[in-house]
Amino acid sequence: MIRLSLVGIGSGNLDQLTIQAMRTLRAADVILLPRKGAEKSALYDIRRQILAHMSGGPVSARLVDFDYPLRAQGGDYLGGVHAWHAALAEIWTALIATHAADNSHVALMIWGDPSLYDSTLRIAKRLAQGRDLEVRIVPGLSSLQLLSAAHGVALNEIGAAVQITTGRLLRSCGWPKGVSNVVVMLDGACAFQHIPQEGVHIWWGAYVGMPWQVLMEGPVSEIAPRIATKRTHLRRKHGWIMDIYLLRKAGP
Amino acid sequence: MIRLSLVGIGSGNLDQLTIQAMRTLRAADVILLPRKGAEKSALYDIRRQILAHMSGGPVSARLVDFDYPLRAQGGDYLGGVHAWHAALAEIWTALIATHAADNSHVALMIWGDPSLYDSTLRIAKRLAQGRDLEVRIVPGLSSLQLLSAAHGVALNEIGAAVQITTGRLLRSCGWPKGVSNVVVMLDGACAFQHIPQEGVHIWWGAYVGMPWQVLMEGPVSEIAPRIATKRTHLRRKHGWIMDIYLLRKAGP
Repeated sequence: MIRLSLVGIGSGNLDQLTIQAMRTLRAADVILLPRKGAEKSALYDIRRQILAHMSGGPVSARLVDFDYPLRAQGGDYLGGVHAWHAALAEIWTALIATHAADNSHVALMIWGDPSLYDSTLRIAKRLAQGRDLEVRIVPGLSSLQLLSAAHGVALNEIGAAVQITTGRLLRSCGWPKGVSNVVVMLDGACAFQHIPQEGVHIWWGAYVGMPWQVLMEGPVSEIAPRIATKRTHLRRKHGWIMDIYLLRKAGP
Repeated sequence: MIRLSLVGIGSGNLDQLTIQAMRTLRAADVILLPRKGAEKSALYDIRRQILAHMSGGPVSARLVDFDYPLRAQGGDYLGGVHAWHAALAEIWTALIATHAADNSHVALMIWGDPSLYDSTLRIAKRLAQGRDLEVRIVPGLSSLQLLSAAHGVALNEIGAAVQITTGRLLRSCGWPKGVSNVVVMLDGACAFQHIPQEGVHIWWGAYVGMPWQVLMEGPVSEIAPRIATKRTHLRRKHGWIMDIYLLRKAGP
């Protein structure tokens, strides 16, 4: 039997780890560390930093690097995602077979939390099918909370609903029906520029929770171009970017 | 100047505290501890337990208990909430004036995280108006993540949106338009019993993240009555309940 822990680590700031996350990483025999190409090597480095600088000294697990396959772009979106999950499940299977002895404990560090727009939980379930593998999730802070905390703004208005969506959906389907609060994740192309902007306020954050976080806030009609420019600049400067934003439409 | 920290503590399980939350509680001069009537004294006790059992020994802050005013029920919902916030802001002001010296650091422990369906951020902003008060949020795990982790299920389907809403809204407005994934919080009356149940799956959890968490999962049409019975039983047994659920509608 193999135990596989998916450990949410928040934004990469060591202070955001929970006690349970630290304990799990410390108890692991093997930790798998993805490398996602040159652009995101910074994320790889941050994971390594966390493991090296946890209170109580570095973890004792064997650290196993692996390269992330690229997801096919264009064409059938869902089909591409499924093929990509299958490829990752194969890679993990091979890594576990090579590096993890029977009855050992393997961990993966998940950016943010595995509950939203993250593929690891799905891949782990594929892996577990027909194998003696127990999957356990250790929740971490999500960028939802980090954005709210950084701006000091609640995601919902009193008693109101909040929609969590993606840049792709916001751009293709427009403002979601029936809600005035929308949180947008996974937006690589500033979809807020392509919606009716009248009466919409944005709270935007990049690298939220990290010491170098950048926050911008204001009416979308005024600051949308500035956010887009800033985003391009930041992405070039750091070599990668993760951002998230809350949109709120004023009542009629 | 007074610093006021709103510290998210997750579900009350000590292992879910982040390093930053522990450090903030440890650095506080005064910690305000709400008591919300007999039914919820268990929550008061859990907060006290956390402060007494953090690694590194009990906190040194002065612990100040206070009674929570009751929110007027019925009538104008929003008006009632605003009046209740005003009453709480007055109580906090008086407590800070009495117990916190100038330049001291006051902390409040927030169940879950202040970003969703929590009043403390709004009350703190009222308090800060015209006063020399700096409000800081320390994010905590939300029951969103805890539910997802406990069931091992992502909140979203691949690339799809998720609506976070309340029991009140689900019951009064029905299934939200345009989404197939709905997370319901603040539901004291099992609103899932009052929606069209065809093709809807529910992942329900009470006390998620605590050692005594209870999980139930299945087609709403089959298990809704069992969840409602279980909920009544648990509430009686523990004297309080906090629950949350994910509903997912099968595609056409």
